[in-house]
Amino acid sequence: MHTTAGDRPSTALLTDHYELTMLQAALADGTAERDCVFEIFTRRLPNGRRYGVVAGTGRLLDAIADFRFGPAELDRLRGVLDDRTLAWLADYQFSGDIEGYPEGELYFPGSPVLTVRAPFGVGVILETLALSIYNHDCAIASAAARMVSAAGDRRLIEMGSRRTHEESAVASARAAYLAGFGSTSNLEAGRRFGIPTGGTAAHAFTLLHDSEADAFAAQIASLGVGTTLLVDTYDITQGIATAIEVAGPELGAVRIDSGDLGVLTIAARRQLDDLGATKTRIVLSGDLDEYAIAALAAAPVDVYGVGTSLVTGSGAPTASMVYKLVEVDGRPVEKRSSNKQSHGGHKSALRRHKTTGTATEEVIFRVAGDQPDPEPGDRVLPVPLMRAGERVPTVATLPESREHLRSAMVSLPWEGLKLSAGEPALTVTVLR
Amino acid sequence: MHTTAGDRPSTALLTDHYELTMLQAALADGTAERDCVFEIFTRRLPNGRRYGVVAGTGRLLDAIADFRFGPAELDRLRGVLDDRTLAWLADYQFSGDIEGYPEGELYFPGSPVLTVRAPFGVGVILETLALSIYNHDCAIASAAARMVSAAGDRRLIEMGSRRTHEESAVASARAAYLAGFGSTSNLEAGRRFGIPTGGTAAHAFTLLHDSEADAFAAQIASLGVGTTLLVDTYDITQGIATAIEVAGPELGAVRIDSGDLGVLTIAARRQLDDLGATKTRIVLSGDLDEYAIAALAAAPVDVYGVGTSLVTGSGAPTASMVYKLVEVDGRPVEKRSSNKQSHGGHKSALRRHKTTGTATEEVIFRVAGDQPDPEPGDRVLPVPLMRAGERVPTVATLPESREHLRSAMVSLPWEGLKLSAGEPALTVTVLR
Repeated sequence: MHTTAGDRPSTALLTDHYELTMLQAALADGTAERDCVFEIFTRRLPNGRRYGVVAGTGRLLDAIADFRFGPAELDRLRGVLDDRTLAWLADYQFSGDIEGYPEGELYFPGSPVLTVRAPFGVGVILETLALSIYNHDCAIASAAARMVSAAGDRRLIEMGSRRTHEESAVASARAAYLAGFGSTSNLEAGRRFGIPTGGTAAHAFTLLHDSEADAFAAQIASLGVGTTLLVDTYDITQGIATAIEVAGPELGAVRIDSGDLGVLTIAARRQLDDLGATKTRIVLSGDLDEYAIAALAAAPVDVYGVGTSLVTGSGAPTASMVYKLVEVDGRPVEKRSSNKQSHGGHKSALRRHKTTGTATEEVIFRVAGDQPDPEPGDRVLPVPLMRAGERVPTVATLPESREHLRSAMVSLPWEGLKLSAGEPALTVTVLR
Repeated sequence: MHTTAGDRPSTALLTDHYELTMLQAALADGTAERDCVFEIFTRRLPNGRRYGVVAGTGRLLDAIADFRFGPAELDRLRGVLDDRTLAWLADYQFSGDIEGYPEGELYFPGSPVLTVRAPFGVGVILETLALSIYNHDCAIASAAARMVSAAGDRRLIEMGSRRTHEESAVASARAAYLAGFGSTSNLEAGRRFGIPTGGTAAHAFTLLHDSEADAFAAQIASLGVGTTLLVDTYDITQGIATAIEVAGPELGAVRIDSGDLGVLTIAARRQLDDLGATKTRIVLSGDLDEYAIAALAAAPVDVYGVGTSLVTGSGAPTASMVYKLVEVDGRPVEKRSSNKQSHGGHKSALRRHKTTGTATEEVIFRVAGDQPDPEPGDRVLPVPLMRAGERVPTVATLPESREHLRSAMVSLPWEGLKLSAGEPALTVTVLR
C-alpha cells in the first residue's frame, strides 16, 4: 500500500466505487472542471436529541492529506477506470478550500457543518471518506456529550474499545475525550491523540489467582496502593473487606461492574467509611448510559466507566450526515424528487445569543444571498479549515476543541440539556 | 509505528490499558505463566434474533500475526509499565493455540465461538482486539444474513461505507459478503479482501450537468449502456423516460433511491416494459433493512442496495461477545457475584441434525467432562485455527466461509429464519 509522507497508509480507497466512475465520466465530458460547492449537513437529529456535536474535523484533515493514489491503489483500479482517469488520480492531491463549524461546535438540523469548494472531480471523491469520519465521530461525540452533561462534576472513563471495530475504538476514544471524558482505556488513542489512558485489572486477574486476597496483593505490589481494585468477582461485601484488609485505608478506589449499582454503591460507601477508607473512591461500570448516569446522581459515585453505550452512540450509531452538491459554477442546485429536499447554494451560519451568553437561534443563509441583520451576540459559525489544499494554521487542537464544546454546552438554554426526547435546543432559521 | 512483516501496521496498541497492567502484575508474581483457557461467547442474541453468524475469524488471525510491540509501541508504554514488562512485550509473539467455530458458522447463546489456550500473559493481552473484531464483524454479518434471507434470490449490494467509521466500512463490506451480499461499493474491501466492487453515479452527477439527459449521456459514454442510471434526482417518471430515450432499451438498470419504493417499483417496471426495456433491471436503495426487503418481495425489484442498516447491524451494532478466563492450570474458574454467571472450563460443542440435514440442537460440553452420546448427524463445531502461534493451513478462505454459511442457513429449522423476534432457532444444551 502507498504510504504517505508520515507513517500513515493512504486513505484513497476508503471510497465508494461510484465516486471514481462519476469522476471518469466527468473528466470525459469536461464537467469535472466545473467549480462546485459540496456541503455536509444532517436533516435531523436522532431519537429526539436536542443537539449534535461536530467531531472528526481533525481526523478528516489528516485523512485528506493522506488521500493519495500510489501504485497499490492504482493497480487496484486498473481495469475499472480508463487511463485518463488513472493518470489524473496519480497526480491527485486535494487542492480546494474547506470551511466548517469548528470541531466541538454544536449543530442542529440543516447546519452547514462542512463546506468543500473545489472543481467537481477534486471535491466529489472525498464524499465517502468525509462522511465516514463525520457520521461516526459526530454520533459518538453527540452521545458522549449527553453523558458528560448527566455526570455533572464526576469523571468519566471511556472503556468501550472491545464493543466496536478496533479502529472505531480509537476514534471513539477521541470523540469521547472531545466531549469531556477524562480518559480512555484505549492505548492507541493515547499514542495517536495524546489522550490520557488508564486501567488496572479485570475479573480474569482475580480468577487467575488462588484467592481474591492474592490477586489484590499482587495488584497492589505492582501498581501501588493508589490502584483501583475490582471487588465484584465473587461477593462484593467480602471483596471490599478483603480489599481494605490487603491495601489498607489508603486504597485509591474500588470498582463495581455488575449488579444494582445504586444500592450497591450506597452500601459500598458505608462499608468503606466504616473501615476508615473515607478517601477510597468508587468507580462504577457495567452497561452505563446517560440515563443510568443521571439516575445515579444521588448515589455516592466518584467515577463512571462507560463502554457499549458510548461506542454505539447510545442508540444512534450514525449521525445521518450527507455530503451534497449545492452549487455548480455559482448556480445553486438541489434534488427535488421527494421529501429529501435539500437547500441549494453555498451557505454560512451564525448563532445568536442573549447578553447573558445564552444561545437563542441559529440562522443559516446563502453566502451570495440575503444576509441576516447583525445583532450583538452574533457569532459566525464556519471557520476556514483548508485553503488551496493546505490546512490553515488556526485549526483548533483537540484540547482547544474540547474547551470549545464545554463553552458551547454552557451557552445552551437549560431545556436543551434535558435527556428526554424533544425538539432541537435552538430554533434554526433558514433564509432563502 | 512498527510495521510487521507485511505492509500492515502493528495492532498491539488496539488494546485496553488494563490488559498490560494485569500482565505486569502477573509477571511480577509468576502467575503470568499459568496455563489458561479463554473463551469468547455471548450470553444472548440481540433483539429477539434467532441466530448469530460467526465473522471476523480471518481478520483476527491476521491481527494476531501483527500483534507485535516495536519501538513506537514500547515508547508509548514507557512510564506506564516497568522494564521487565516492556522487555517481555518486545519479544512478544502469540505462541498459543486457538480453536473456534469456523467463520460463517451460526452461533447461539453460550456457543464457545473461540477458545484461546496460552499462558495467562500470552492470552490475556489479546482480549480487547479479539473482542473488537468479533463484536463488530459478528454484529454486521448477523444482520446481513437476515437481509440475504429476506431477499431470496435477489442480489444485494453493500453500500453503507459512508455511514460508519472508514475502517469499519471495510470490515462491514467483508462481513456482508460473507453473509451472501453480491458486491460492495467499498474499494478498499475490494483491494484487501478481493470482494467484487461496483457503482455508477450519484445525484451529484446529475446536478452537475445542465440537464438530466446530459448527465445520462455522459455516463453512458463513459460506462457503457449496461450501466445503472439513477433516475430520481428530479421526477422519476420523467427520469425513466429520459434514461431510455438516451440509452435505448438495452439500458442495464435504473436505480431508485427515495420515495415509496413498492409503488414506485411497480410503476417503473410497467413504464420500462412499455418502452421496450424489458431487460432493464430495477435497483432499489434508500434506507432499506431486512423488513423493508421482505415487504418488497412481491414488487418487481431486481437488486437491493443496503447501507445504513447493514453497517449499524440493523439495531444491534455490537454482538455482546465477551472473552472470559474459563480455566487455570486445568481448574475451571468462573465469576459468581451476579447474574452474569459464566460456565467455567474448556468447552467444545456439537450440533445435532436430523437425517434430512435440519439442525435440531446444539450441545455444549466440557472437554474434560461428560461427553454427549454420539448420534448420527452430529457435527463437532470448533476447528483448529492456530497451533503454537501459527495459523493452521486448513483455515477457511472468505469464499469458503461464505459457502459454509449458506449451507448452515439451509440447515436451520424454518422458524429460525423468521425475521420477527423470538427464541434462538436451536435449543442449546449445556452439559455440566
